Amino acid sequence: MQIDISRPILDKNERLAAENRAIFDAAGIFVLDLMASPGAGKTSTILATIAALRGRYSIAVIEGDIASSVDAEKIAAHGIPAVQINTGGACHLESDMIRRALSSLDLGTLDLLIIENVGNLVCPTEFYLGEHAKVMILSVPEGHDKPYKYPGIFQIAEAVILNKYDTIEVFDFDESEFRQVVSSLNPKAPVFPISATKGDSVELWAEWLAGRIEANKART
Amino acid sequence: MQIDISRPILDKNERLAAENRAIFDAAGIFVLDLMASPGAGKTSTILATIAALRGRYSIAVIEGDIASSVDAEKIAAHGIPAVQINTGGACHLESDMIRRALSSLDLGTLDLLIIENVGNLVCPTEFYLGEHAKVMILSVPEGHDKPYKYPGIFQIAEAVILNKYDTIEVFDFDESEFRQVVSSLNPKAPVFPISATKGDSVELWAEWLAGRIEANKART
Repeated sequence: MQIDISRPILDKNERLAAENRAIFDAAGIFVLDLMASPGAGKTSTILATIAALRGRYSIAVIEGDIASSVDAEKIAAHGIPAVQINTGGACHLESDMIRRALSSLDLGTLDLLIIENVGNLVCPTEFYLGEHAKVMILSVPEGHDKPYKYPGIFQIAEAVILNKYDTIEVFDFDESEFRQVVSSLNPKAPVFPISATKGDSVELWAEWLAGRIEANKART
Repeated sequence: MQIDISRPILDKNERLAAENRAIFDAAGIFVLDLMASPGAGKTSTILATIAALRGRYSIAVIEGDIASSVDAEKIAAHGIPAVQINTGGACHLESDMIRRALSSLDLGTLDLLIIENVGNLVCPTEFYLGEHAKVMILSVPEGHDKPYKYPGIFQIAEAVILNKYDTIEVFDFDESEFRQVVSSLNPKAPVFPISATKGDSVELWAEWLAGRIEANKART
């Protein structure tokens, strides 16, 4: 019964997402939907990614949160265009929210748009926003058992960033088991251990993303 | 529009929650709905709470997860009755799931039922399950800015457990700011810093919970 009720919402979202995707492709922008738990380090990872790629690409960010504009302010403080979306209570972004946010951005000048979804390992996986790739962050303190509990997000993500890797000695995190379970759920997804706030080991992740941006440029 | 569509689901949930509450009160059980992000330490906190209170109270646990039964297995390994609910994809527990789980428990023998909700700071706040109190855990690695971003859960929680407190030196967590914002959102809610996996400082939280169990016993 719930599936029937939610179907019209999902259908409308998919239609608007396809329109968003046409807008992105017409402008030649690669769009990333970044998903993670609250406090996994989404904004810090975006800042580290900006630091690695801003010399090569023109970047903007859309920040999704239930409330507050602290994340958009952090991004804007680095001179990067940032639009904050407040969902009110919704646990994920939807395509119409993205559409409205786009009107605040100068799309013709951009190479990369990063969408930071609401902190949640469930809801964001079900909503296509028009992005070219969904990527997820798991932070070491959350524990290596998360792929067992939230398999959906690990299956849909095209890459998995393992953040706060510098604290792996502090927590009982079994990296080998984590990689094995992620690989069984999603054999193609690379795992990138990083420490976003310290800027450690961000290069491999940034190069993967640059590869996707270049492939998108060649295609559009 | 979305509010209209979801209204029948919420109404049905509220009705079943009221029935659950009547069942709990008839059996004299205090029921706690424990909410937190993925990996904040819900299961570890439940284990620490069990260790503190099992001499005084008869306890059972209902574990909510999208998938897997790892949490229920961890609880059952300590000789405590544990029922695992797998929501499939839903980001929160609902009253009918609780009702079905109750059939696996010997309610007449229990003083305390702890419900571990799905890891999420948004969805579980909107669904009353029949519990006597909602309590939340924030873990230090998630950051002190979470009350700005997820005010709803901090407002509805009757107590806030600050877990992984032993790692506060590793992370840039401003405890004073955190307490100030929590207090502005929810002046009555106590904040309990604990380290669940080490068993540190669990006593104050356990005594608060014992006080609620006793008050409930006196009332029913």
